[in-house]
Amino acid sequence: MNKWEENIREVEPYVPGEQPQEKDVIKLNTNENPYPPSPKVFEAHRGMEIGRFALYPDPCATELVHALEDYYGLDRGQVFVGVGSDDVLSLAFLTFFNSGKPILFPDVTYSFYPVWAQVYRIPYECPPLDAHFRICPEDYQRENGGVVIANPNAPTSIGMPLDQLEEIIQTNQDVIVIVDEAYVDFGGDTALPLLDRYENLLIVRTYSKSRSLAGMRIGFAMGSKRLIQALTSVKESINSYTMTMESICLGTASLEDEGYFRSCLDKIITTRDRIKAELEKRGFICLDSLTNFLFVRHKERSGEHLFNELRKKKIFVRHFGGERIREYLRISIGTEEQMDRLLEALDEI
Amino acid sequence: MNKWEENIREVEPYVPGEQPQEKDVIKLNTNENPYPPSPKVFEAHRGMEIGRFALYPDPCATELVHALEDYYGLDRGQVFVGVGSDDVLSLAFLTFFNSGKPILFPDVTYSFYPVWAQVYRIPYECPPLDAHFRICPEDYQRENGGVVIANPNAPTSIGMPLDQLEEIIQTNQDVIVIVDEAYVDFGGDTALPLLDRYENLLIVRTYSKSRSLAGMRIGFAMGSKRLIQALTSVKESINSYTMTMESICLGTASLEDEGYFRSCLDKIITTRDRIKAELEKRGFICLDSLTNFLFVRHKERSGEHLFNELRKKKIFVRHFGGERIREYLRISIGTEEQMDRLLEALDEI
Repeated sequence: MNKWEENIREVEPYVPGEQPQEKDVIKLNTNENPYPPSPKVFEAHRGMEIGRFALYPDPCATELVHALEDYYGLDRGQVFVGVGSDDVLSLAFLTFFNSGKPILFPDVTYSFYPVWAQVYRIPYECPPLDAHFRICPEDYQRENGGVVIANPNAPTSIGMPLDQLEEIIQTNQDVIVIVDEAYVDFGGDTALPLLDRYENLLIVRTYSKSRSLAGMRIGFAMGSKRLIQALTSVKESINSYTMTMESICLGTASLEDEGYFRSCLDKIITTRDRIKAELEKRGFICLDSLTNFLFVRHKERSGEHLFNELRKKKIFVRHFGGERIREYLRISIGTEEQMDRLLEALDEI
Repeated sequence: MNKWEENIREVEPYVPGEQPQEKDVIKLNTNENPYPPSPKVFEAHRGMEIGRFALYPDPCATELVHALEDYYGLDRGQVFVGVGSDDVLSLAFLTFFNSGKPILFPDVTYSFYPVWAQVYRIPYECPPLDAHFRICPEDYQRENGGVVIANPNAPTSIGMPLDQLEEIIQTNQDVIVIVDEAYVDFGGDTALPLLDRYENLLIVRTYSKSRSLAGMRIGFAMGSKRLIQALTSVKESINSYTMTMESICLGTASLEDEGYFRSCLDKIITTRDRIKAELEKRGFICLDSLTNFLFVRHKERSGEHLFNELRKKKIFVRHFGGERIREYLRISIGTEEQMDRLLEALDEI
């Protein structure tokens, strides 16, 4: 081994769902939106002045940040944007979790949390979900260096009522509490009404699920001005210009088409509820989903078996190896047609 | 102060050049390319399938990575791409500089280096440039945790001959040596021929200067497979999908138009040499530039005075506060017309 190899940072990277490049697959493995972005986004793309791509983008992404602040009824200085919510979350870990005490997040949740903790050398502990995969607020009342709650949680799809979430924030006012609302638009309770009361609350969102713009990498955080300013300073100590001109422009355009946005959400929720019933008829146990995916296990067939059989039929779903969730599949909600093909495939299996 | 504020990471952010949003200014302050991207980039933008923006991009940006490996005659696994070269450099600091020993870079160089060192808590030392603003290779022969050399250097614009650079790499084979070649396309000596011989050499480049794509945020690193793999693992521990679909596509298209690329470089070099002579006639001392900017001071007028007077005339150049360079201005090379207006403005002042 070369001497320089001793000083390479030790990591155990997050493994994202596959991104198969063939076009005839049915992709239900990374919770993307099956519907295209709004026609306003198409127009904005076509209207871009390509000659200006030679210039740096606005480092503050002001147009997009202001549009988000207006959309959510927040003050100036309450929104921070990044390269997908992973970028925002990673930066929040680096910015806020420096006490040396363990941060807390559930044992079954977004599997990137322990990866960020490791890369930034943040100790962490994982209170287990209860037998029904619910978060127990009382587990978060011990001393800690910060709390991270995905609500609705992933991959469980289960939402937490706002009063329980507030209990966690209420009892953790000496640390930053991050609420990851990647899936909240599909029916969860947002923590937005709590922002006025808790200066230590940071809500993180993404354009990759509800807004059909995973390809453009846009995530954002909402919080008190103090938190947003701290995030901004650390971001400006890493990369001045993170958001491309295109992402700033399309992200803004997406907010201008509420009708289209709502109609896509409605379609996904309708499909989700139909497919849940259909899966239950077929011997699946489905957790109550407030997201754009279902977390399901079959009473007789193993998760791994179903995953592999579906894959042979070019239907990609997600299967995780963790002990408590080995028998489960996470299935993104696609179009009606895609989901019918999933049901047919399951019937064949 | 709230208790949680005690645990916010301490930083002193990099201050980028201003990005004035008015359109009638002459922007010679952030070394962008005054010429638009290649017509192939325009075509690629128009040809994008916007419906696919709902999907995640390829996390490995394979299309762009392979195109760069082919362009530079490298093997598969020798290129890493990121959100501008700042993203790549920042990640390289985090990945490779973990020995606890001070890393070395010159006292006058890209002012983001000490910022990354601070945010990641890496100790550093800054050997001074000589009286002619040249890097002294012998200063880099002491024990250290890594070396970072910008070649050509910024903001000095001066290039280092390859044999001197190799001397630094040769005597530092126990650590990673990063060579930041942001400006090399404008006439510097690239370290590419050394890649075969030094597994610990990482070369970093950007699309923001020579390739007229600052707005799309594309940077890349070239190195041994071991270094690229380490960078990739750390990147995958922070953000799976950093490059937007658009950046992957336009970055690839830009490589397919060598003629256009070369003709823009030639124009900029011709303008640079003409303007250098014109500035010298007007009492300026100009360092020998191998970049797309000039680093100049006037024999009688202070740097700050000239900066402010030009700004009043809506001509933005860059002025740094550091002790050794306070009397200097860094002036990006614009179009012939922009540079003529600069000369007129200086004559008026």
